[in-house]
Amino acid sequence: MDAYTRIEQALEASLRPISTASPPRLTRALRHAVFPGGARFRPRLCLEVASASGDANPELALTAAVAIELLHCASLVYDDLPCFDDAPLRRGQPTVHVVYGEELAILSGNALIVRAFELLGDSCERWPQLAGPMLGLIARAAGSPYGITAGQAWESEPRINLRAYHRAKTGALFEAAVLAGALAGGGERAGWVGLGDRLGEAYQVADDLRDALGRPDIIGKPVGQDATHGRPSAVDRLGLDGAVGRLRDLLDGAIHQVPDCEGRGELITLLRGWAEHLLPRTQRANASAQVPFIATA
Amino acid sequence: MDAYTRIEQALEASLRPISTASPPRLTRALRHAVFPGGARFRPRLCLEVASASGDANPELALTAAVAIELLHCASLVYDDLPCFDDAPLRRGQPTVHVVYGEELAILSGNALIVRAFELLGDSCERWPQLAGPMLGLIARAAGSPYGITAGQAWESEPRINLRAYHRAKTGALFEAAVLAGALAGGGERAGWVGLGDRLGEAYQVADDLRDALGRPDIIGKPVGQDATHGRPSAVDRLGLDGAVGRLRDLLDGAIHQVPDCEGRGELITLLRGWAEHLLPRTQRANASAQVPFIATA
Repeated sequence: MDAYTRIEQALEASLRPISTASPPRLTRALRHAVFPGGARFRPRLCLEVASASGDANPELALTAAVAIELLHCASLVYDDLPCFDDAPLRRGQPTVHVVYGEELAILSGNALIVRAFELLGDSCERWPQLAGPMLGLIARAAGSPYGITAGQAWESEPRINLRAYHRAKTGALFEAAVLAGALAGGGERAGWVGLGDRLGEAYQVADDLRDALGRPDIIGKPVGQDATHGRPSAVDRLGLDGAVGRLRDLLDGAIHQVPDCEGRGELITLLRGWAEHLLPRTQRANASAQVPFIATA
Repeated sequence: MDAYTRIEQALEASLRPISTASPPRLTRALRHAVFPGGARFRPRLCLEVASASGDANPELALTAAVAIELLHCASLVYDDLPCFDDAPLRRGQPTVHVVYGEELAILSGNALIVRAFELLGDSCERWPQLAGPMLGLIARAAGSPYGITAGQAWESEPRINLRAYHRAKTGALFEAAVLAGALAGGGERAGWVGLGDRLGEAYQVADDLRDALGRPDIIGKPVGQDATHGRPSAVDRLGLDGAVGRLRDLLDGAIHQVPDCEGRGELITLLRGWAEHLLPRTQRANASAQVPFIATA
């Protein structure tokens, strides 16, 4: 079974205990937040790093991948709320609050966060040495001062620490995906530190580029959001060419950083495919290239 | 050091790592959500049950107590939001969203939830046999289908399951406080099942009575909220006398359920004091009675 399918099935299974007895509209709202998914970058990254690092505990890697994706989905629900981006579309569908109202959007976000940690807590007995650090690194990436919550909160500050903002808003969960993968895979974590952060920043710059250049029918959400919300964007800061250059540097840096490990070659191939996909179409070496990291589903 | 002071100090310590590097307004918003506190019923209940059950792991009990209180504080921040109760006051102060805006209210709730689970995750290595079940029972009380999130979500359903609603919205976190206390204390958990749920329902009925009878200057938040929001209330369902009778039954039931344990007598004395406090003033055996369970601070 390929990684994408494993993730979809595990996400389904993770929500099953909620779906049976929850208030029915809450169940529908939180399923809407999770399915259909986007590219599932973060959980795939976690599984790929685990696999490259020896795959010592594949079930723990999958649990971490699912927890990370649930936290990501929750953060998107909040991001889209009227008091933040007030976005009508996400992944080509009406956003959760548009369909179910703000109350259920907020509550589905809460339920997803709690579920993510509940899954990690279930690992404590089976992997007592790994589950605590795993939960810690994922919590760090979700909360404050270093995680998504802090990243979003920097937008409410009169003065913004740009590096802290980007690291927290996007880098942190990518970094957690990589480190969780290395931890579950049984590898040495030190060599991986910073790689996810680079990928996260690359993803953020790519998102800024798409936001500046893209078409909403391609990316499944409104464009021009950074300008509308006065948010700092790499395109504003560096110009279009500068942003593309920065994106290339970040991706090259990440690829060169993959430490010596069992599955190094395969992981680098995957990351190259992903890198190709993140670049604007006109900048790609081969515009019709296969993108092995991206599921077409 | 008394339990109330221990809890306040531990809550302070739990937020310290957030306060150092977080966006400053987020730090202020989440401190506003936690301090000054209310009666701290749930964490005190957790510590008292732990103490009555043998107090085998007082630090774990304190961690659980703090996590439970952080989750409770988060739930109040959400409850007060414009899309839910739109409440201007809480614990006698302007609510978090009134002072800091909806964005930071939502984000402070998220940060508190994540921090609660991070603290529990930190316990995995030290108490590998206890931390997993502890995290599980607290997550169950916070999320869906059986926790606060589900309780709040029942309010968005066209048909409400009243028992599930009350159990989830209020009972679940009391039940978790009792069971977490028993687990950390080293006692047998089975005898405690249902006690917290009874106390939670009692607390809910008392809240309904205060909402119907109370004065906002006494309870520190607006009254008549149940009628305003069309929420099911014990006073509507049972009438005033019926609700008082139900409250007495629940409190008596909880007190009689305290299982045979080292500190049974002391715990019963505390619960009797608490029970006295929950009854409307005119119904108390001794209107000037000391209330040992309630801190006067």
